[in-house]
Amino acid sequence: MPRSYASLPRLYVEPDLALGGAVALQKEQSLYLAAVLRKVVGDEVVLFNGRDGAWRTRLTSDSKKSVTLEVVEQVAAQTPPSELWYGFAPLKTERLDYVIQKATEMGAGIIQPVLTRYTQVSRLKHDRLVANAIEASEQCEVLTVPVVAPETTLEKLLSTWGAEQGDRQLILADESEASASPVEQVAALRGQKVGLLIGPEGGFSEEERQVLRAQAFVTPVSLGPRILRADTAAVAGLALIQAIIGDWR
Amino acid sequence: MPRSYASLPRLYVEPDLALGGAVALQKEQSLYLAAVLRKVVGDEVVLFNGRDGAWRTRLTSDSKKSVTLEVVEQVAAQTPPSELWYGFAPLKTERLDYVIQKATEMGAGIIQPVLTRYTQVSRLKHDRLVANAIEASEQCEVLTVPVVAPETTLEKLLSTWGAEQGDRQLILADESEASASPVEQVAALRGQKVGLLIGPEGGFSEEERQVLRAQAFVTPVSLGPRILRADTAAVAGLALIQAIIGDWR
Repeated sequence: MPRSYASLPRLYVEPDLALGGAVALQKEQSLYLAAVLRKVVGDEVVLFNGRDGAWRTRLTSDSKKSVTLEVVEQVAAQTPPSELWYGFAPLKTERLDYVIQKATEMGAGIIQPVLTRYTQVSRLKHDRLVANAIEASEQCEVLTVPVVAPETTLEKLLSTWGAEQGDRQLILADESEASASPVEQVAALRGQKVGLLIGPEGGFSEEERQVLRAQAFVTPVSLGPRILRADTAAVAGLALIQAIIGDWR
Repeated sequence: MPRSYASLPRLYVEPDLALGGAVALQKEQSLYLAAVLRKVVGDEVVLFNGRDGAWRTRLTSDSKKSVTLEVVEQVAAQTPPSELWYGFAPLKTERLDYVIQKATEMGAGIIQPVLTRYTQVSRLKHDRLVANAIEASEQCEVLTVPVVAPETTLEKLLSTWGAEQGDRQLILADESEASASPVEQVAALRGQKVGLLIGPEGGFSEEERQVLRAQAFVTPVSLGPRILRADTAAVAGLALIQAIIGDWR
């Protein structure tokens, strides 16, 4: 997005976006633009919907109940959705929000909560996770909001992996792995669809670890000699993948 | 640290640590162990001081005013302090704490707040930053607490770089850089002392960016096509450095 649009508010919407079209925002976004950001008729906002790229739009109504916008100019062409899969054992509320935001920021395309033996959270507010992914996409200029999948168990994830994920390779952040070089391990997966799985704060159980490591599609990697919190490991692991075989080049 | 010690509380202390020695904790740590963690005589704690490795110790007094511990067994040999330098434009309070924690977790050895034109914070509570670095070291099993340097300005940092840092190379996370591959750029610095500099939320000013890029010791790298928040960029950039030329291998 050219620098002149970088400072405009950026909102995710459902409707189609095309030159000259009009978009009526729903109540919550209308209130946000009109009351919180105090936008008035003539002000500009960038909209995206995950299909049509990002568009500069202009307010034609500033009602707090229903802001409408005229679609003026495409400022970014649509990019294909990210194929990068990110699985994680959900954390408690605030840090869970944080993990969703960070995964979105780092370019994950599919975000999959996975319940493990030591996971301390069992029921998730799916709507809240989706809202977090949308908000992060708005802020970090992602053009396709990542899909947040409903939670599953580790057992089910592994037993349905081939059917659901095809030949996707799974990079497992494993504290017990004494790998020579995570860089070479990740580089060896170049050209394949990949995922990253981060365990819960308490780690995987010994049984879970053995089952995971026994899968042909799993590559255990070490994220260094220090103990990383799960949210740090998410960013670090996704950075490694994006830099070596992802979209950082 | 063997798994059996991993669950013990871990505290940073000033005194020397040697087999059979005794350590009297100061008031705040005594209160923490005795009142918060409810440790009693005979319970075990791991202590480290940045010089003598980590030691298993045992409470010989559980007074809330002054816990004393007997040094029982070394559980980790001292590692050399990390040479990795991390500079960042300070953020507002909560996210500032977070950045210090994450830099420590990722193995930075020197943490340098740098005031830039668009930095929104000018005076830092140095004690608070040090406390955060200590707490993060305790949690992530770092054996040497990183040094938190007093804040400086970008101008002063650059004008004294050679005198203070010798031949250290500075990796600059630069959104405007259209680099081919951050992996190759970082790999090219193998064997040299390096630092990572992350700008403020508003980015560097155009003038600052030009001055930075004009320095022979600066390597601008791109951290991908998305807008990363400063705290995310810290973890991502440090992960890249540690994985490619640092201690992840």
